[in-house]
Amino acid sequence: MAVGTLATVKSLDPVDLRELGAQMILSNAYHLHLRPGDELIRDFGGLHSFMGWNGPILTDSGGFQVFSLEGLRTVSEDGVEFRSHIDGSKHVFTPESVMRIERNLGADVIMQFDHVIPGQSEESVARDASERSLRWLARCMAEIERLQASGGPPPTTTIADRPSLPGTTFPLPAPSHPQALFPIVQGGIHPSLRAEAARAIRDLGDWPGFGIGGLSVGETKPDMYRILEVVDGELPRDRPRYLMGVGFPEDLVEGVRRGVDLFDCVAPTRMGRNGAAFTRDGRLNIKRTEFRTDPRPLDSECDCATCRRFTRAYIRHLVAADEILGLRLLSLHNVHFLVQLMRDARVAIRAGTLDAWSRDWLTRYHTRPTSNV
Amino acid sequence: MAVGTLATVKSLDPVDLRELGAQMILSNAYHLHLRPGDELIRDFGGLHSFMGWNGPILTDSGGFQVFSLEGLRTVSEDGVEFRSHIDGSKHVFTPESVMRIERNLGADVIMQFDHVIPGQSEESVARDASERSLRWLARCMAEIERLQASGGPPPTTTIADRPSLPGTTFPLPAPSHPQALFPIVQGGIHPSLRAEAARAIRDLGDWPGFGIGGLSVGETKPDMYRILEVVDGELPRDRPRYLMGVGFPEDLVEGVRRGVDLFDCVAPTRMGRNGAAFTRDGRLNIKRTEFRTDPRPLDSECDCATCRRFTRAYIRHLVAADEILGLRLLSLHNVHFLVQLMRDARVAIRAGTLDAWSRDWLTRYHTRPTSNV
Repeated sequence: MAVGTLATVKSLDPVDLRELGAQMILSNAYHLHLRPGDELIRDFGGLHSFMGWNGPILTDSGGFQVFSLEGLRTVSEDGVEFRSHIDGSKHVFTPESVMRIERNLGADVIMQFDHVIPGQSEESVARDASERSLRWLARCMAEIERLQASGGPPPTTTIADRPSLPGTTFPLPAPSHPQALFPIVQGGIHPSLRAEAARAIRDLGDWPGFGIGGLSVGETKPDMYRILEVVDGELPRDRPRYLMGVGFPEDLVEGVRRGVDLFDCVAPTRMGRNGAAFTRDGRLNIKRTEFRTDPRPLDSECDCATCRRFTRAYIRHLVAADEILGLRLLSLHNVHFLVQLMRDARVAIRAGTLDAWSRDWLTRYHTRPTSNV
Repeated sequence: MAVGTLATVKSLDPVDLRELGAQMILSNAYHLHLRPGDELIRDFGGLHSFMGWNGPILTDSGGFQVFSLEGLRTVSEDGVEFRSHIDGSKHVFTPESVMRIERNLGADVIMQFDHVIPGQSEESVARDASERSLRWLARCMAEIERLQASGGPPPTTTIADRPSLPGTTFPLPAPSHPQALFPIVQGGIHPSLRAEAARAIRDLGDWPGFGIGGLSVGETKPDMYRILEVVDGELPRDRPRYLMGVGFPEDLVEGVRRGVDLFDCVAPTRMGRNGAAFTRDGRLNIKRTEFRTDPRPLDSECDCATCRRFTRAYIRHLVAADEILGLRLLSLHNVHFLVQLMRDARVAIRAGTLDAWSRDWLTRYHTRPTSNV
């Protein structure tokens, strides 16, 4: 999922996303609650309508954000009291209030509000947070059921109802259906905690999907892969698993090998803005002088709008000149690259060749080419 | 012409430009000479090929830029010695060297290298600069003829020759034809100087078109309009007149009323990045709180990609959050607005109703609407 924190995937238009084959995007309840406000978005018919994206949307609850506000937040069993990073105003997030925010936004998949801890936390801290997250999950579930029972699916304005001009070309009306609440499996880098958390969550309900949190926060890759294998073994095979905040192309491949179905990461757009481009032969930084006169596309096998039309030399010029088009072209390419990567993974899975495909892919990606391809 | 100083119209893709109906763009020889270098661009087949734009391009010679480098430049009859604003390196621009730069870039229309003076210069200063510009025009003409005679049209690589993938969708190969050199009529706000300059220029040759420089640099609007009327009377009726660096919508309309055919201005993109949007009822600033919950498009009669799909509230949110998509959507709208404005002007000219049309347009544009339309 391309990350659209503030109701936009940075520099990309919904039409761009559709053209590069993106299916689903992520947005953030914490950020949108603060600005422009979830109630404003609700009044505009929900996030799909507000930002003009009619595909699936997943909202993160903001747990990671509020727990990251060092010194600006107070945690209790009830929830988290914090000060906005924008203007210092006081806010309180509880499982119930976050569910109301996510309902106002109207995303198709909504994440529970969980207690997030630093990456290298010791086991007792991880245990306490994981158990609280479970209690909070139950409260999220209760609140969402209460809201659904009293008001039905979240109100969304179909695009057709919006004031518009003849010839509006935006395709489908936003769907109007119950939201899917995903729990988040925590437990740090402690395999036993992770297994316990997964089982306890499953005991609470028949979840439509599962988030896997607390990874890619400073632990080693071997640790991350080990935990993924543990969690993979504990979750139902027929439900999507969402590895939150991950990642780079190699992390996606390693995740898919371990049962992960859904990812989100700011890397394609954020690193794109710093000149980084993903290619099948590894990551390159377009700012390097070696690309100054390079007439080739970023990736010789990529068919995105950037690679079909522009040279490395031109993109490098744009980035060196701080031109917005440069970061736009890189973002387009990088998001497309990951979307295509996952498409290829699905083909391999269906053909029963995932293992060989992923090994070959990783080998090529991690090998410095002998000539500058 | 949308301004693409550094081989890109800020935040806009060539495909965006084509879709909003832009026909011609402007780029700048000074900036491109410094970065990435006109010889690099030549090696890439010229500017059309390098930036992926196959429509007409006009390059400004950079006269305005080098003469603006206060304290960093030395003027003589030979040319201008200056230091790059990027890295302080020394460069020399002469009429001959600028023609070589513009040939390397390969634009369809190229502006002479002229002696630019501050807007409120007194008549003697304006006269000296105007007369030098005429001598430099003769040198430009001689150099371009020499280059054409020895090498033919500037070398351009057709898009078909570029290394590309199957399914490259970019349309036509870049044309390969002699470049059209436009002189620039100077003379400050002194009607007699302007008339003399126009006549002297016409005596030098049968020019394909004429630039009108040194306006919109601090003089009053009435002065600008008066000078335009003088120049209009002195130039051949069947040649395009290009009012350089102008302007805002109202300036375009007033210019067309006085015989101008071609304009360029950074306003649509630069002001767009600051939240300004052109509408038929005047300019608005989307950052204002009154637009926070406004469900209407920027302009109710506009059919651009922004107005067909997004609300003022959403665009305001994007701009308040410093999101790139916000400035992109505003730039798209503003450029489209001006392109459409000129289309409407051409319809009025053909119908013989330019006077009434322009008066009505200006009245509506300058009148604050009674209700927030």
